[in-house]
Amino acid sequence: MGLSLSKLAVKFGCDLLGNPETQVTHAATLLSAQKGAISFFSNPSYKEQLISSKASAVVIANAHVDICKTNALISDDPYLTFSKIVALLNPPASMSAGIDKNVSISGDIDISKSAYIGPFCRISGNVKIGRNTYIGPGCIIEGDVEIGDNSKLIANVTLVNKISLGKRAIIHPGAVIGSDGFGNVKTEKGWFKIPQIGGVTIGDDVEIGANTTVDRGSLDNTELENGVRLDNLIQIGHNVSIGEHTAVAASAAIAGSAIIGKRCLIAGQVGIVGHIEICDDVRVNGGSVVTKNILEPGIYSGSFAADKDKVWKKLVGKFRRL
Amino acid sequence: MGLSLSKLAVKFGCDLLGNPETQVTHAATLLSAQKGAISFFSNPSYKEQLISSKASAVVIANAHVDICKTNALISDDPYLTFSKIVALLNPPASMSAGIDKNVSISGDIDISKSAYIGPFCRISGNVKIGRNTYIGPGCIIEGDVEIGDNSKLIANVTLVNKISLGKRAIIHPGAVIGSDGFGNVKTEKGWFKIPQIGGVTIGDDVEIGANTTVDRGSLDNTELENGVRLDNLIQIGHNVSIGEHTAVAASAAIAGSAIIGKRCLIAGQVGIVGHIEICDDVRVNGGSVVTKNILEPGIYSGSFAADKDKVWKKLVGKFRRL
Amino acid sequence: MGLSLSKLAVKFGCDLLGNPETQVTHAATLLSAQKGAISFFSNPSYKEQLISSKASAVVIANAHVDICKTNALISDDPYLTFSKIVALLNPPASMSAGIDKNVSISGDIDISKSAYIGPFCRISGNVKIGRNTYIGPGCIIEGDVEIGDNSKLIANVTLVNKISLGKRAIIHPGAVIGSDGFGNVKTEKGWFKIPQIGGVTIGDDVEIGANTTVDRGSLDNTELENGVRLDNLIQIGHNVSIGEHTAVAASAAIAGSAIIGKRCLIAGQVGIVGHIEICDDVRVNGGSVVTKNILEPGIYSGSFAADKDKVWKKLVGKFRRL
Repeated sequence: MGLSLSKLAVKFGCDLLGNPETQVTHAATLLSAQKGAISFFSNPSYKEQLISSKASAVVIANAHVDICKTNALISDDPYLTFSKIVALLNPPASMSAGIDKNVSISGDIDISKSAYIGPFCRISGNVKIGRNTYIGPGCIIEGDVEIGDNSKLIANVTLVNKISLGKRAIIHPGAVIGSDGFGNVKTEKGWFKIPQIGGVTIGDDVEIGANTTVDRGSLDNTELENGVRLDNLIQIGHNVSIGEHTAVAASAAIAGSAIIGKRCLIAGQVGIVGHIEICDDVRVNGGSVVTKNILEPGIYSGSFAADKDKVWKKLVGKFRRL
Repeated sequence: MGLSLSKLAVKFGCDLLGNPETQVTHAATLLSAQKGAISFFSNPSYKEQLISSKASAVVIANAHVDICKTNALISDDPYLTFSKIVALLNPPASMSAGIDKNVSISGDIDISKSAYIGPFCRISGNVKIGRNTYIGPGCIIEGDVEIGDNSKLIANVTLVNKISLGKRAIIHPGAVIGSDGFGNVKTEKGWFKIPQIGGVTIGDDVEIGANTTVDRGSLDNTELENGVRLDNLIQIGHNVSIGEHTAVAASAAIAGSAIIGKRCLIAGQVGIVGHIEICDDVRVNGGSVVTKNILEPGIYSGSFAADKDKVWKKLVGKFRRL
Repeated sequence: MGLSLSKLAVKFGCDLLGNPETQVTHAATLLSAQKGAISFFSNPSYKEQLISSKASAVVIANAHVDICKTNALISDDPYLTFSKIVALLNPPASMSAGIDKNVSISGDIDISKSAYIGPFCRISGNVKIGRNTYIGPGCIIEGDVEIGDNSKLIANVTLVNKISLGKRAIIHPGAVIGSDGFGNVKTEKGWFKIPQIGGVTIGDDVEIGANTTVDRGSLDNTELENGVRLDNLIQIGHNVSIGEHTAVAASAAIAGSAIIGKRCLIAGQVGIVGHIEICDDVRVNGGSVVTKNILEPGIYSGSFAADKDKVWKKLVGKFRRL
């Protein structure tokens, strides 16, 4: 059930070094690869691993071919080509359409015949689920919710209130989309809860990580445009807007009404204050706190690297005496 | 099905400018408002939006009335009055009492006849659920748990061990309340788990956000007093105590046995070290790490604003050479 | 149903002061203890609490015996001995084996007859569940998953894809293990999702907190060794490796392929950058961002303590003019 290197070379437009009949059956790292594995090389610091690797073939850039002793596919972007081969070798499990018998449905529900609804899902309200869409076990979909074709809610995903979710979405377990934003007005008797009546609009090809939360808008909608990628445990506040192909890494928190442009990279644990704007093509490094508009593309930072405690304490002492 | 401005003016004690017969049917922002919408104006930087808004009416302070061209309700606190109107225009969906057939119940359970228990809920142990309380789909309530009247667990909420939850609580999806605190003693063979046998005591009018975790106490209880508001993805460690009407924003983490006073505002991603005390009326700004007692009301900060990476790197370089 | 002090003294090898016939029925803090309670004293700053405590007995170090007025067990490590007594006084609830009728099972499933599977669990794929293992309500176990003996998934835990979980594990509600890592390659059309095909290998005696996420490896496995303790809301990226008996506190985030040694203490909200290495016996203080390899055991820090906002703003101003 393997694939020949020659076939892969044709499919991905690569030059081929070595035996074109080499069969690869699975993907592996250089270090763990055994016979039958295809691997990749892109970071020169792993040169030793390349040399000693038992991989049957390697995807590699032309510039590194001279140190490669095994069969190789030559690619301008070895990691991308390799990733595509991994996808080819690991096709998604085939899905059997239909609604599990342990499902609770009520309301005005329109589920495509080619969709799958797993056990212990609750679907109620005004819900539309598109073709070939997979709703894994334990998902809760309540309210006015539309899910596009070929999307996948892995398991235990909660969608509530008003949500429009596009095509080819992947939502990981524990994600909560559409719950109330954090809106409170101070009164003499404590907090008055501001009714949250907006929804969440999510484009196509969006991926949302495990236990990430995306709040519904207060009045208008919270928006994630096409191709947005959210990692795990991220907070997206009400009325946040995230532009196309922006990726946000784990444990970042984006406060209400922040507007983030296209193709941005927001690293792990970054905090973004509410009501500010970040333009397209901005990268914010890990642990930074963004408190003002960023109107110029580029790289932004704001965190300190940890140091030996004694060294750090001295520096902080000097800082405090500035 | 709209409400007339004159009625709203009477109900909320506002002066009225323009046509008292104006009907408003829904709430919207100045920007997205169309005919029939009521909006609000409080931030002067949105003056242009006010002038061009298509809202049928606006809630506004007396000081800004001169720039308002449409019908208006005049209020000392436009945002609060507007929020109350939003609530009036969006009453909570009526709830049908009863226990769904797909519910698993065991033990000594006392559920009010006016309560609702949704599909795929598991309720076991010694559980009491009050009048008009709504337990949405997929909730797990196990142990010695009492939930007061008119509370709402939206969906997929987990309450375990010993919990007393007051009236009018709102708990959002994915929240976990009552799970073990992080208690370990070092031994020569690794960690010995300290049994966690306390509970969680939660007052009235508390709101807890999506995927937030509130640990049970180690021996005594973890406590959230009346009116506490927790946003999403917050960690509340064992034996933490949070005073009345304190609000905590998303992704904050409060370590074990910290005591936080009344009416505090803990901003997003704030970290609070264990076993410290914060007095009433303290505001901690976003991303700060609180490591010592705060015994004086006021505003506290400890984070740096992100800057251009080159600028930041230079500053950090100078800091390290202090 | 109490235990006599003399019995406890023998069991834990303690000297005994006072009446050996004293019965203790439960554990409590010095402050909340009433008759029948056993408490402990280790922090000298609680001396007043010790003196006024109503506890029937106290576990205490020899050095503090002179200020103790009540019955006492003398221990080199009062907190550990006390914790063991708490465990003795609070044995785990007995578990009734068997599979609840509201369970959905499909595939090649091997569940020990002494295991328990609670209501609304979904188990599918190629799953093996060991002896005396407790799978609480609402858990989802899908894929190639093996769970060792005497483990406990409290409730609403999601295990997907390829997971090997050892013996005596405790997994708290909302934890998600095995979901896709955050792997994306940039292309001209946006992000190409790198297939995540690795698994998660977890040793024995591991505890994982509420709403914590542990991603599956990209190609190889993510690994948690024996005795690892993870608190709540932690992110463990793909291919992370955590050594034996390392403990990680709440809201920490460990990025992909980071390698952390044995017996480390990673405090709350710490961020660890991907692809770096931390050696054994390292402690990282709260809120630090670790960006480089740590190859020497010791304590590391990188965060600032919050201060009064005016003081902090002045310091930051001076820092920016360095």
